[in-house]
Amino acid sequence: MAVNFPSIDPAQLHPVAGVALGYAEANIRKPNRKDVLVISLDEGATVAGVFTSNRFCAAPVTVCREHLAKVREGGKGIRALVVNTGNANAGTGESGLAHARETCTELARLAGIAPEQVLPFSTGVILEPLPIDRLKAGLPAALECRAAAHWFEAAQAIMTTDTLPKAASRQVTIDGHTVTLTGISKGAGMIKPNMATMLGFLAFDAAVAQDVLDALVKDVADRSFNCITIDGDTSTNDSFMLIATGKSSLPAVTSTNTPAYAALREAVVALAQTLAQLIVRDGEGATKFMTVQVEGGANEGECRQIAYAIGHSPLVKTAFYASDPNLGRILAAIGYAGIADLDVAKIELYLGDVHVATKGGRHPAYREEDGQRVMKESEITIRVQLGRGSAQATIWTCDLSHDYVSINADYRS
Amino acid sequence: MAVNFPSIDPAQLHPVAGVALGYAEANIRKPNRKDVLVISLDEGATVAGVFTSNRFCAAPVTVCREHLAKVREGGKGIRALVVNTGNANAGTGESGLAHARETCTELARLAGIAPEQVLPFSTGVILEPLPIDRLKAGLPAALECRAAAHWFEAAQAIMTTDTLPKAASRQVTIDGHTVTLTGISKGAGMIKPNMATMLGFLAFDAAVAQDVLDALVKDVADRSFNCITIDGDTSTNDSFMLIATGKSSLPAVTSTNTPAYAALREAVVALAQTLAQLIVRDGEGATKFMTVQVEGGANEGECRQIAYAIGHSPLVKTAFYASDPNLGRILAAIGYAGIADLDVAKIELYLGDVHVATKGGRHPAYREEDGQRVMKESEITIRVQLGRGSAQATIWTCDLSHDYVSINADYRS
Repeated sequence: MAVNFPSIDPAQLHPVAGVALGYAEANIRKPNRKDVLVISLDEGATVAGVFTSNRFCAAPVTVCREHLAKVREGGKGIRALVVNTGNANAGTGESGLAHARETCTELARLAGIAPEQVLPFSTGVILEPLPIDRLKAGLPAALECRAAAHWFEAAQAIMTTDTLPKAASRQVTIDGHTVTLTGISKGAGMIKPNMATMLGFLAFDAAVAQDVLDALVKDVADRSFNCITIDGDTSTNDSFMLIATGKSSLPAVTSTNTPAYAALREAVVALAQTLAQLIVRDGEGATKFMTVQVEGGANEGECRQIAYAIGHSPLVKTAFYASDPNLGRILAAIGYAGIADLDVAKIELYLGDVHVATKGGRHPAYREEDGQRVMKESEITIRVQLGRGSAQATIWTCDLSHDYVSINADYRS
Repeated sequence: MAVNFPSIDPAQLHPVAGVALGYAEANIRKPNRKDVLVISLDEGATVAGVFTSNRFCAAPVTVCREHLAKVREGGKGIRALVVNTGNANAGTGESGLAHARETCTELARLAGIAPEQVLPFSTGVILEPLPIDRLKAGLPAALECRAAAHWFEAAQAIMTTDTLPKAASRQVTIDGHTVTLTGISKGAGMIKPNMATMLGFLAFDAAVAQDVLDALVKDVADRSFNCITIDGDTSTNDSFMLIATGKSSLPAVTSTNTPAYAALREAVVALAQTLAQLIVRDGEGATKFMTVQVEGGANEGECRQIAYAIGHSPLVKTAFYASDPNLGRILAAIGYAGIADLDVAKIELYLGDVHVATKGGRHPAYREEDGQRVMKESEITIRVQLGRGSAQATIWTCDLSHDYVSINADYRS
C-alpha cells in the first residue's frame, strides 16, 4: 500500500563513527520479532531531542527530559538510547515511571555507565503495563550484537505496524570535511490500531555544542516531523532525537551563525524530511502522497493552520482517495481553519498545475477533467495563496481510504 | 444505517400558528425530488439566526445576515424563508451573491413583500454556479402549495443526502398558556460527498422580542447544533433559525430574566437538541451514537475542547466502530486537546458505568471485557473528569465506519 516508497539498500546506509546499534527479540508483545533496540554512543557525543506535546506523555518521555536536563546542568553525557516496541508505557502512572527508570538502570549496569546516561523510548499499546522483566531480559542480547553497520536492522527493530523499515543516509562535504548522516524513523503505518507513535533518530559525526544542537533539533523538527499528518492524532510517545558524535574532522560547530552550521542544518533538514515523508508514504491505508503548500500568509503560523485544516479534513482526504475533484471541500477547510480576518476574495487555489479557484471562486477556465487528471496521480500538490503577506508553510499528508478504517478497526487480538 | 432513529409520525408534528410551508420539485440538481422549500410567516413574526463561522460562508448566508441586520435597524419584519438543495451557492463569488439576491427579489415579487423580508438558504455542492432560472421557476409551485400542516414535507424538501427526514415537535404550557414548537433539520447524512450543510429551522407561536430572540438563538445553538460533530468539517452554509410567530396567548417575552423565558428556553433547547441529535443518528455511516461528557473543568471552553478532541479523533471513532476497547486512544486525545496545564494525574475516565482510568492510569479493577461490553452497545457515554473545577460540557458524535469512506469517496456523478 505504501505510496512511492523508495527501496532502501542496507549497504547505502553509512555507518556513523561513534554509533553502534544492537537489537533483540524480547517477546515484548509478540514472539519472533525484533522489539528492542540499543543505540550506544562513544564518549563525547552530544544529544538533543524534541518530544510529544501530548499532556499524557509516556513515562519514557518524562525520563528522557529529566536525563537531558541533567546533561545541560553539567552531568555526564548520554551514552545509550534504548527503544522497545509493543508497549507504549503511557497512561501507566507511577509504576510506568518506575519501569522506565528501571530500564535505564539495568542497561547502565550492563554497559558500565550511569543510569542518567541512558535515554528510554517506548512505542505500542497505551494503558497497559510494560513487561519490564522481558524487556530487561532482552538487553544483554541487544548489547552483544551491537555494530556500526546495523542501521537497517535498527530500523526494523523499531517498527510496530509499519509495513516497511524507514531509513535514510547521506554524506556532505562542509568546509572540505566529510560529514556522514544516517537516520531511522517509524510510525503511522499502524496495521494494528494501537501503535501511533512517531520515533525518529538521526545521527551524524560532526561535533556540535549542546546549545546549538538543542536549537537545531527544534528547527529541524519544525521543518520535517512537525510537518506531517496522517490522521491528526498526536501520540503520547513522539520523539525525535539528534545525535552528534563529534568524530568527523570538521571543527566543532559552536554557533548557529556560521556557514558550517548552515551547511549542516541543510543536510540534517533534508534527511529528516526524507525520514518524515517515509512515514507518510507508509501511512495507514495511504494511496496518495499529498503536499499542501500555503503561501502569502501574514505569518507562518496561519499558513500551517490552514495547511493542517486541509490535511486533516476527512472530506478532503476521502475525495483524494476517490480521485473526485470535489474541490469546494478544500475551500471549506480553508474557511474553517480559524483565521478570523481571512479575506476569501483573495484566495487562489491550485491543484498541481491546474488553477482551480481565483478570487475565492471557481476559475473561469477550470474544467473538472483537469482537476481529476491531477487527482489520479499518486503525488499531488495542493497550493493555496492567501494574498495577505509573504509567509509560507508546507505539510505532507495522505488520503483516507477504506484500508485506514480496516486497519484501525481491526480488533487488537 | 441510522442509529436508533425514532420513527416520525407526520401527524404528531403540530402546526405552528402563523407558519405555512410549501415545496416544489425544481430540478435543481436531480429530477423528481422536492428541492425547494418556502416557509412563509404571518406579519408580526420575529426571526433570529446563527450562521456558520466558516470564512468561506455561502452567498445566502451573507444575504441572510444583511436582511436580519435591516430588521434590527427598524426595517420591515421577515415574512419568508426560501431553501434550495442540490447547490450550496458557496465559493461562487460576486455572481453567487447576485443569485441569492435575485432569489429574494423573485419570491418577494410573487408574494407581494419586499426583497429584504426574505431569507435565502442553500445546501449542496460548493464551487458550482446556482441554477437560478430553475430555482426561480420552482417558486410559484412552492407558494401555491403552502399549508400549516406541511412540516413533514418541509423536512423532506431540505434533505440532500440524509437518509431520513428530521423533524420534531412539542407543546408546553407556560404560565397557563399553551405554546407549540415544531422544527426540522438536515445534514450530515451525506450519501453524496458534497453536501455537508447543517440546516435547522425551529418555529414556535410565542411572541418574543427581537433582542431576546437573538440571545435565545445563540444560547440554544450552543447547547444543541454546536454540540454535534460527525467529521469536524464545518460547512460553508450552516444555519439555525428561530421563528417566533407571536400567535400564542402567552404575553410577549421581552426579557431573558423572567420565568416565562426560562420555560420557553427549556422547551426550545430540548427540541433543538432532539433535532441536532437526529443529525448525528443519521450521520454518514454511523453505527454508534456517542455522548462525550467532560466534567470538572476550569471553564466550559476547555471541557468542549477536550470533548471535541475525543469526538474528532479518527482513532477513537474507528475503535468504537470496531467495539475495540482500545481506550488509551481516549487518553491520548485528552492529552493533545491543547490544555497546556492539564494535570493528567487527576484524570478519571468512565465508559458507560465502567471506570476505565483513575489518576491518569488504568483503573486496577478495570477489565477489558467490561469495556467491550459497553462498546458493543449502540448508545455509549464517554465521561471524563478533569478535577480542575466545576464546569462541564457535552457533545454528541458517531463512530467512523467503512461506510463513511464509501459515502464520501463515491464519485458525485
